[in-house]
Amino acid sequence: MKKINPFKTCLMLLCILGASIGNAQQMANNSEIEKAMIRAMEWQEDHPIFAVSPTDWTNGAYQIGITRAYDATKNQIFLAALKNLGYRNNWNTHDRFYHADDVTVSYGYLYLELNDTRKNYVDLKPTTTFLNAHLFEPNPWKEGTDKQKFKKILWWWCDALFMAPPVITLYAKHTGDMKYLDAMHDYYMETYNLLYDKEERLFARDMNYQWGVNEKDLKEENGKKIFWSRGNGWVLGGLALILNDMPEDYKHRKFYVDLYKEMAKRIKELQPEDGLWRTSLLSPESFDHGEVSGSGFYTFALAWGVNNGLLDKAEYTPAITKAWSALMACQHENGMVGWVQNIGADPQPASVDSWQNFGTGAFLLAGSEVLRMK
Amino acid sequence: MKKINPFKTCLMLLCILGASIGNAQQMANNSEIEKAMIRAMEWQEDHPIFAVSPTDWTNGAYQIGITRAYDATKNQIFLAALKNLGYRNNWNTHDRFYHADDVTVSYGYLYLELNDTRKNYVDLKPTTTFLNAHLFEPNPWKEGTDKQKFKKILWWWCDALFMAPPVITLYAKHTGDMKYLDAMHDYYMETYNLLYDKEERLFARDMNYQWGVNEKDLKEENGKKIFWSRGNGWVLGGLALILNDMPEDYKHRKFYVDLYKEMAKRIKELQPEDGLWRTSLLSPESFDHGEVSGSGFYTFALAWGVNNGLLDKAEYTPAITKAWSALMACQHENGMVGWVQNIGADPQPASVDSWQNFGTGAFLLAGSEVLRMK
Amino acid sequence: MKKINPFKTCLMLLCILGASIGNAQQMANNSEIEKAMIRAMEWQEDHPIFAVSPTDWTNGAYQIGITRAYDATKNQIFLAALKNLGYRNNWNTHDRFYHADDVTVSYGYLYLELNDTRKNYVDLKPTTTFLNAHLFEPNPWKEGTDKQKFKKILWWWCDALFMAPPVITLYAKHTGDMKYLDAMHDYYMETYNLLYDKEERLFARDMNYQWGVNEKDLKEENGKKIFWSRGNGWVLGGLALILNDMPEDYKHRKFYVDLYKEMAKRIKELQPEDGLWRTSLLSPESFDHGEVSGSGFYTFALAWGVNNGLLDKAEYTPAITKAWSALMACQHENGMVGWVQNIGADPQPASVDSWQNFGTGAFLLAGSEVLRMK
Repeated sequence: MKKINPFKTCLMLLCILGASIGNAQQMANNSEIEKAMIRAMEWQEDHPIFAVSPTDWTNGAYQIGITRAYDATKNQIFLAALKNLGYRNNWNTHDRFYHADDVTVSYGYLYLELNDTRKNYVDLKPTTTFLNAHLFEPNPWKEGTDKQKFKKILWWWCDALFMAPPVITLYAKHTGDMKYLDAMHDYYMETYNLLYDKEERLFARDMNYQWGVNEKDLKEENGKKIFWSRGNGWVLGGLALILNDMPEDYKHRKFYVDLYKEMAKRIKELQPEDGLWRTSLLSPESFDHGEVSGSGFYTFALAWGVNNGLLDKAEYTPAITKAWSALMACQHENGMVGWVQNIGADPQPASVDSWQNFGTGAFLLAGSEVLRMK
Repeated sequence: MKKINPFKTCLMLLCILGASIGNAQQMANNSEIEKAMIRAMEWQEDHPIFAVSPTDWTNGAYQIGITRAYDATKNQIFLAALKNLGYRNNWNTHDRFYHADDVTVSYGYLYLELNDTRKNYVDLKPTTTFLNAHLFEPNPWKEGTDKQKFKKILWWWCDALFMAPPVITLYAKHTGDMKYLDAMHDYYMETYNLLYDKEERLFARDMNYQWGVNEKDLKEENGKKIFWSRGNGWVLGGLALILNDMPEDYKHRKFYVDLYKEMAKRIKELQPEDGLWRTSLLSPESFDHGEVSGSGFYTFALAWGVNNGLLDKAEYTPAITKAWSALMACQHENGMVGWVQNIGADPQPASVDSWQNFGTGAFLLAGSEVLRMK
Repeated sequence: MKKINPFKTCLMLLCILGASIGNAQQMANNSEIEKAMIRAMEWQEDHPIFAVSPTDWTNGAYQIGITRAYDATKNQIFLAALKNLGYRNNWNTHDRFYHADDVTVSYGYLYLELNDTRKNYVDLKPTTTFLNAHLFEPNPWKEGTDKQKFKKILWWWCDALFMAPPVITLYAKHTGDMKYLDAMHDYYMETYNLLYDKEERLFARDMNYQWGVNEKDLKEENGKKIFWSRGNGWVLGGLALILNDMPEDYKHRKFYVDLYKEMAKRIKELQPEDGLWRTSLLSPESFDHGEVSGSGFYTFALAWGVNNGLLDKAEYTPAITKAWSALMACQHENGMVGWVQNIGADPQPASVDSWQNFGTGAFLLAGSEVLRMK
């Protein structure tokens, strides 16, 4: 999955010629990981991209990656980028209060407020306004009045479980007000009840991918249900983020822990030999190559579980190590993280050259927890 | 025209030492062209420059280059930059409605609206407001009341034929309203009648460069008239852009086809041996080195003509190939496109280190059509 | 202080193998300096950072470095960055009119207005408003009513002598109105009288670092007073900037010349063997490594003095040369300038990886005057 790098070839040849190449080989492994993360972020910063605006969910997911990278490394290079993103966004959310996607970007703002030394620097008013409207005011999705019938709950698609709940958890931590967590839990349960396939222990992307809903069931060529890798990556990655900041004694915490463990086990079972998950979890042959965004979220979530005592270290470490090595091999020499499926809602192919900011975010998330395993 | 690259030297030496250097030499030619274009854009994005604002013509011409690069490659790296430029400009034109320069930047906005999947994402109101005022409302240039007497028509300088007409053509395509093309044609004819030298088949930059206008005729040291390379590049490049989107059955299309063919032939005749045009077309010895902005526009225009059946492939391909190879040799290792004459109105020298965003734009335009010749 | 660069190692090995590596070794020294400066700026532009906003003093000090780099090289790459910074700041100062830090950024705006060909392009209104309020309207610091008693004059900390006076000098040059210089002189004298230690010929950072002020004197482990390298760097660098633009016949000029010469001599005496000053001038052993921001300002100031006939060339050149070589060795291969002490108010350690925009600014200032020594 990696392009030929003439410079590495050059170094290699020199080795063959018997020359010693400094201390490159002795570089600490963690230093290599951090460098890969920095290069990923630097490339992404040089190539700004968004669906509609720097305040949208694509940039939000990327920003979460930067946030966790800073948290793990305390390297100012990530902090500077995080502050710059927030400042240039004027600390705004995106504009649809009913849409979970439009508050993802607040994760970084909240983290800064909670962790930076400069108090009251971040303007949290737009985030507060958004969350109060999102959670406590009526909208067509909540009320099930949208003309598209599958949009009948607030978070009617599984990606939403990454987009809003970790932000809400951090907001509850910031305010100390558990009513936000309580409201989150109610909506989370709606989505869980609607989209979680208990037999497969995976989330349907939305009702359209469930059987018995539409006139004709959507299925893979092999006859199986469609379970999208990134979609489940959003959920499992979101669970790790939620658990990271949810109070240990929060009354519903056990639900999230159990769901996290169950899905983590299932995802590990589904890991392909080369370490990277395919875009269609139950039909890997559909597009038989690793995909980075889903795999990045899984790697992050599994490593977080090991680091926080929710998963058995001996059991999960080989899967994590294999996945991270494969993720690093998807990074180009210039820092670009390839093999990212484009914006979508179901399994589609990726390529060595396909990239997205949220794919870079997934890469940063994975690296941030792998770093902590050492 | 290229700096020594120690890395290439290194590779070369390794070759001499008998070592094989991977598959670098087998790289497809088109891939090399696209990579050169990407590096040019990346360097330019890292070095923002403008005359007065990112909405001005310098950035507009650069943005047209990115637009056509995306159109030719469908590489998301160009699309992301294009959206980012438009978003950060808030889809605004620059502010002088009477000035063709100030609407160039709308070319990219219109292209996005016409070609991106996200409809109504681009805000075309500023462009509409500008074009309606520019074409249909009075101003001192149109009325010939400017105190500088050579500014006696709307488009009194030949550069204007690149700055506004391609935007107007795209706007007519977007709206389907031919009144925009009709108005454009009227103003275009004014400029043609005023500045086109039928004997030399070249445009004077403005009336000051015509003989018999001022007390003392401006002339080159060799006694010839001053015909500026970039000025004629604006015209010929603009003609290719206009023809690219003008309806095949538009009543005045033949005028543009004929003018395009006549100028293309003349420009080919004037091409220096090394492939790159000098800044003074009839006095190449004035500054006897290739210049990239004019040459880029010519290369783009000639290649566009071959690709679209207006020019004979066998006859024009050698000139295009020679020009493109020479253009690529003006790109530095870091991606910067050098040998670009600075902002001006007449032939002046360039240097290996002189660059401008519109020079990068010309380079991208040239590459985008050369890519299509394969 | 420099990381191993495998590429250089590679080149070196090839040399050992008897191969000639082009003309790299014959490169003019000034070209190397300018390239180092360009790479420093490019890296910094790729890594925007600020304390609270791009209009704050950190970015202001960086922008002064770019300004002087352009002035010394006339390289458009610096001019483009300077215009871009100003344009994106909308030519605004930061917002506290009583605070010297918040007008530093206007230095670049004023330079552009004075030196660029496009007159009235820069909007100087925010700067004018700031300076009139700062110098001629009451505020708690001026009046000594701040609850923190050491903030009892307008410029109560020595850094302020870099932050505002060079801007005021440039503003006086722009307007030709000496009342600005006169007001500056009054406030400068207050700071000089309050914080200058005539015995040590160094500035205390603020009253807290003077003895006999607080209940318990602050002192280094070696028992000496705390004199902060960057703090004195702000003062000496600021003096060079002030003298650069203060009229030769200004009535108080002699005071600044004398202070400049006295401090320059002292700083030279205190230079460590390896060329770079430690963060604690009288206790180098506290953090026994060179620090780039203070050293950069000193190198700039000393070289400026030689170039402008205030310091003896033979006497000062060795110190400047040694310092500049050591500064260049603190630059990473990717252009990043390391070994910069973070934001602070007293001596603290730096590291190979610690960087700040004002550190890059100090590097650019140093390079800009070293360039002129050749």
